[in-house]
Amino acid sequence: MPDQLFTFQQLLVFTKAVFQKIGCTNEHAAIAAKSLLSADLRGIDSHGIARLGGYVRLWEVKRVNATPSFKIIHETPSTAVVDGDSGLGLVVAPFAMQIAIEKAKQVGTGWVSVQNSNHFGIAAHHAMMALQHDMIGIAMTNASPLVAPTFSVDKMLGTNPICVAAPAGTEPPFVADLATTTAANGKLEILQRKNLQTPDGWVQDKDGNPTNDPHALKSGGALLPLGGDREHGSNKGYALGAIVDIFSALLSGANYAPWVPPFPAYVPMPAQQPGKGIGHFLGAMRIDAFRSAENFKTDMDHWIQGFRTCKTIPGREKVLVPGDPEREYEAERMVKGIPLLETVVNDLIEVGKKFSLSFG
Amino acid sequence: MPDQLFTFQQLLVFTKAVFQKIGCTNEHAAIAAKSLLSADLRGIDSHGIARLGGYVRLWEVKRVNATPSFKIIHETPSTAVVDGDSGLGLVVAPFAMQIAIEKAKQVGTGWVSVQNSNHFGIAAHHAMMALQHDMIGIAMTNASPLVAPTFSVDKMLGTNPICVAAPAGTEPPFVADLATTTAANGKLEILQRKNLQTPDGWVQDKDGNPTNDPHALKSGGALLPLGGDREHGSNKGYALGAIVDIFSALLSGANYAPWVPPFPAYVPMPAQQPGKGIGHFLGAMRIDAFRSAENFKTDMDHWIQGFRTCKTIPGREKVLVPGDPEREYEAERMVKGIPLLETVVNDLIEVGKKFSLSFG
Repeated sequence: MPDQLFTFQQLLVFTKAVFQKIGCTNEHAAIAAKSLLSADLRGIDSHGIARLGGYVRLWEVKRVNATPSFKIIHETPSTAVVDGDSGLGLVVAPFAMQIAIEKAKQVGTGWVSVQNSNHFGIAAHHAMMALQHDMIGIAMTNASPLVAPTFSVDKMLGTNPICVAAPAGTEPPFVADLATTTAANGKLEILQRKNLQTPDGWVQDKDGNPTNDPHALKSGGALLPLGGDREHGSNKGYALGAIVDIFSALLSGANYAPWVPPFPAYVPMPAQQPGKGIGHFLGAMRIDAFRSAENFKTDMDHWIQGFRTCKTIPGREKVLVPGDPEREYEAERMVKGIPLLETVVNDLIEVGKKFSLSFG
Repeated sequence: MPDQLFTFQQLLVFTKAVFQKIGCTNEHAAIAAKSLLSADLRGIDSHGIARLGGYVRLWEVKRVNATPSFKIIHETPSTAVVDGDSGLGLVVAPFAMQIAIEKAKQVGTGWVSVQNSNHFGIAAHHAMMALQHDMIGIAMTNASPLVAPTFSVDKMLGTNPICVAAPAGTEPPFVADLATTTAANGKLEILQRKNLQTPDGWVQDKDGNPTNDPHALKSGGALLPLGGDREHGSNKGYALGAIVDIFSALLSGANYAPWVPPFPAYVPMPAQQPGKGIGHFLGAMRIDAFRSAENFKTDMDHWIQGFRTCKTIPGREKVLVPGDPEREYEAERMVKGIPLLETVVNDLIEVGKKFSLSFG
């Protein structure tokens, strides 16, 4: 069965309605829907509307508070810690990013660490909020443990993504959004559906041996940090995931390392909870706190054009600048629609039924 | 011929004397010697005293100014841009880091982008300056182009390292210092000496084909970004290297991408120079601008102990925390001395002769 196509508007209306039905205010529901669907627009299908049912199930087991009161629990001129009150990360993160932006307006940069939140969708959505202010935006989050550090059998870190978005002039912005693993879980799911093996360096089995089984994670295995193994620099991917954890959770007082709450509502909470909820880290740096924004953007254009015109290796058409693939997805999907897998459509129909909403 | 051993003090006295002989003030020579030798202590032999002759040769061709006047050319409460006046990065970077620390004392965080500098040794030395102030330290630098972005034949980025240092309580600090390539140049040199092939994903040849030749770089090839190839996430290593370049050079007005000046003095300067010198980025975040430093450090201890006690994969003794190997080197080398290769010793003897200094 081929994927079905839906317009962005269609999915936005449905998603917002679902968030309203669980009790979100009109404003929060709109923010959450936009955050979530930015993933579908940008081609990160694993993090978009496919997870809507998952968020609803978290609300059903009372792990998501649909009517949170966000609080700044500590601040200085350039920093803040936000308590997300168990709200949707999809709403908490834009709130925290807005604080970072306001602080950057005042003192040049703003840095907000968030505790007591939930999954925030894709990091790029939040980091990119800075672009319209001629700021560099930074977004990170920790996540439940799926990744084994170098030499470890135990899963100790999430896929802990890092996003940095920087404005350019006539060129589109630079937007690097990367999980600190070799491959994200979404890529494993694609291989599972196609019954294909993974490349080396993506996963290990339950005993810590290298494997090419895309189902390894389900049978007690782990994702591997960017690099795959020690010989290929997995200690670096592990260090990057650790940095994200420290900035997002150790600085805020959220749960960290293997104690980060799981996304699937049926997975029990960790017995030990050293902090509160999931942690994020949001940053904004005003370009003209360093240098004229015009000069920076002229140089960014020159930088980007330099990379676009590189000589390519055999069999490849062009060198991409971070953010290119996602922007191409967005341009296409805004016009042609967003394709959803049959299983996702069926799950959304079920989600709708819970609230007397029809999907599709 | 086995490596010769030298005491740290012996190398420090010699290195400082050489920097004084090229005209550095007593204070600058001491700072430069300490920056440089921190690499030897921490086991990063490629970036330490082995490069002293290289710095001298840069001074001889007037690419290093031994008596620079550092200037803050722009600032806000949380940011600054420093003009390094073509000084030694070994001195410029600690100067800039100190500004970041002072700003963090005032407004919570400090971020300094540096233009018109030279190579700064190891990033960890500068980032770790923050630790004694209960701050997280961050250090990055761009470098001359040795790395081909994903799908590119052309070398467009340096090995562009990122260091993050975070204090702990009873445990030693977390110090992640990583080049954004699969393997650093120093590791290639080890394989060259031993006549061994590289693992996959380290280098490509002059046409962009994968190769295992450790001499590939010398015959027109390139280092590969962390990940190695697209299938293993090299787009992520490339993005990280690009972020370092943007923070270090686009924000400061330094040279960027393939236009960063080379370290070897015999390599001509790039014809095009869009900025000034090499760029660095230094950051300091006061822990208690977010949360009680005591609570943070207690959680860091818990975090570190969690990783240390992970179950290990077959054949491995323990899971390391970033900074462990370097700290073990330092402890050992402070007692037993620092081993230098015969070629390095001979080069240092030659360097000494230039200034009527005897080495060893």
